[in-house]
Amino acid sequence: VTGERLRDLGEWKLWRRLFPYLDGEGGCVLVGPGDDAAVLAPPAGRALVLTADAMVAGVHFDFALMTPDDVGWRLAAANLSDLAAMGATPLAAVVTAAAAGDTPAAVLEGVYAGARELARATGLLLVGGDSVGTPGPLTLTMAALGTVDATRVLRRDGAGPGEAVVLSGEMALSGAGYDVLTRRGEVAEGDVAYAALRRYRRPTPRLALGAALAAGGLATACIDTSDSVAESLTLLATASGIGITVDAAALPVARAAREAAASRGEEAVRYALAAGEDFELLFTVKPDRLAAALEAARAAGVTARAIGETTSRGGPVLLRTADGAEPLPPEGFRHF
Amino acid sequence: VTGERLRDLGEWKLWRRLFPYLDGEGGCVLVGPGDDAAVLAPPAGRALVLTADAMVAGVHFDFALMTPDDVGWRLAAANLSDLAAMGATPLAAVVTAAAAGDTPAAVLEGVYAGARELARATGLLLVGGDSVGTPGPLTLTMAALGTVDATRVLRRDGAGPGEAVVLSGEMALSGAGYDVLTRRGEVAEGDVAYAALRRYRRPTPRLALGAALAAGGLATACIDTSDSVAESLTLLATASGIGITVDAAALPVARAAREAAASRGEEAVRYALAAGEDFELLFTVKPDRLAAALEAARAAGVTARAIGETTSRGGPVLLRTADGAEPLPPEGFRHF
Repeated sequence: VTGERLRDLGEWKLWRRLFPYLDGEGGCVLVGPGDDAAVLAPPAGRALVLTADAMVAGVHFDFALMTPDDVGWRLAAANLSDLAAMGATPLAAVVTAAAAGDTPAAVLEGVYAGARELARATGLLLVGGDSVGTPGPLTLTMAALGTVDATRVLRRDGAGPGEAVVLSGEMALSGAGYDVLTRRGEVAEGDVAYAALRRYRRPTPRLALGAALAAGGLATACIDTSDSVAESLTLLATASGIGITVDAAALPVARAAREAAASRGEEAVRYALAAGEDFELLFTVKPDRLAAALEAARAAGVTARAIGETTSRGGPVLLRTADGAEPLPPEGFRHF
Repeated sequence: VTGERLRDLGEWKLWRRLFPYLDGEGGCVLVGPGDDAAVLAPPAGRALVLTADAMVAGVHFDFALMTPDDVGWRLAAANLSDLAAMGATPLAAVVTAAAAGDTPAAVLEGVYAGARELARATGLLLVGGDSVGTPGPLTLTMAALGTVDATRVLRRDGAGPGEAVVLSGEMALSGAGYDVLTRRGEVAEGDVAYAALRRYRRPTPRLALGAALAAGGLATACIDTSDSVAESLTLLATASGIGITVDAAALPVARAAREAAASRGEEAVRYALAAGEDFELLFTVKPDRLAAALEAARAAGVTARAIGETTSRGGPVLLRTADGAEPLPPEGFRHF
């Protein structure tokens, strides 16, 4: 990437280049980007949902494997996935960037353009942010605001004993995409690994599924799988104070993930349980609502599958295989 | 600072140590920290105000001069000052931290404790955030949400010709505090520089003033002075499409700032115009509302002063001295 660098532009010229990727006044935006803060008219009678996620170059993304647009998309996807996990509808977001002075302005333009692309597709308005200098790696934060019917919020802590544990989508597509890129480089559209590559670069937050679960009162608890399915299972179980037993045979490990695991000499199920950044939803459903929940997922454009069941209060999180049940290691992305 | 480091704790043990500084469920918090996102019941009939600010260690703050608590306070102050400049009432915020693995957990605890201290004093709820690893310097972001009467929002672009330009507080206290600390080190409570030291470490966002200006319909435009008075004058004039002439003799340069400027061999007015991080409000008022605006400031606990007037549409921003009027350099904090 060439062209002008942030140091040459300064903050205000940079923002003039980023403004085209932001949402100006009109609709529910009463004051758009360029003031001290954005002002929004929220839909009446809804509760507000607030979340934030940070991503660091070289830690959470790699410009050798992703374009700036992919990075912006992923940043938006991580926030939108949090909104989806609450059953919320996206409203508006702000993006902050800490960037070195020699960063090409085109990198930040790409990040904002990619975030904007997913934001547009999901009804999220980008209404502002902040840009600051750093001697360190590019550090991006999005804070996103959504709305939800206060009586229908999806929480982590609502699961009871004897419920079905359901997972949307296929496991470890994003991780397999990363592995394939680092091992083989780009793959063509017909390749088994292509879907994995797409998931790694352009994950899909499950907003329609989250909204359908909330609207239908179908899920007793819900969490997204941003860090890993294993960690999400453990967090949901801990928050709800129940045990979970997962069936290894029922886990929907993506074909590309099986191949990636094999090429690393790892067992597919363990590889898939520890893989992050899929942004699927993991939720619990009372047995008599399971069929309705699976049908709601289909209607929302994603296949969901029962992968196990909740057990007694205070129980462990177990993985059931042909050899019996063993504790599930709460593996996931190591943050520090 | 000693004790456990982030790498030893991992993300979830870290959050358990940060939870005491966050606001749990109750009041308008429907879902508190620990879920995928926080859920809030907003006050009915108000517009939402959304802002975000980022700060980087070694760039925007210096642990040799400030405690982690001071840094957290300043992070909250920067966001609250943006809310004040819109006339908004604080509602809730999320804090994200990108930190190296060898960062003592006590540093983040201090940051959250300091942010919480100012948040409590101003009615801002801290409801969550995110913590991630970085090989770079500690990078902190707060995104804050406030509410405002949609018909009373303070904007940057509402000033017309022939209005008074008003500034709250004294100029360059924070900058003088930084200069004194780097030149002389700590100063005692009786010293002229003590107020400057306090402002540098514990700035006061002008929330009561902003709310009073909004409620009374007293200001036609408003901006905070986070980057510098010079930059704020330029941004307000540009947004409103008017000129401004500032009287050098009317500028309320703090005594400690005059001393700091003298010790650097700089002219006090230029030093004060370029100094940042005071978090005062700069606003425009129609002549017949000036007395009421100054009285509203007094009632809100801060002295405000007319420092000049707006001039014709498209006019320049000028500094009037005994020698005549000259263009005001739009100096401020250099971001990259």
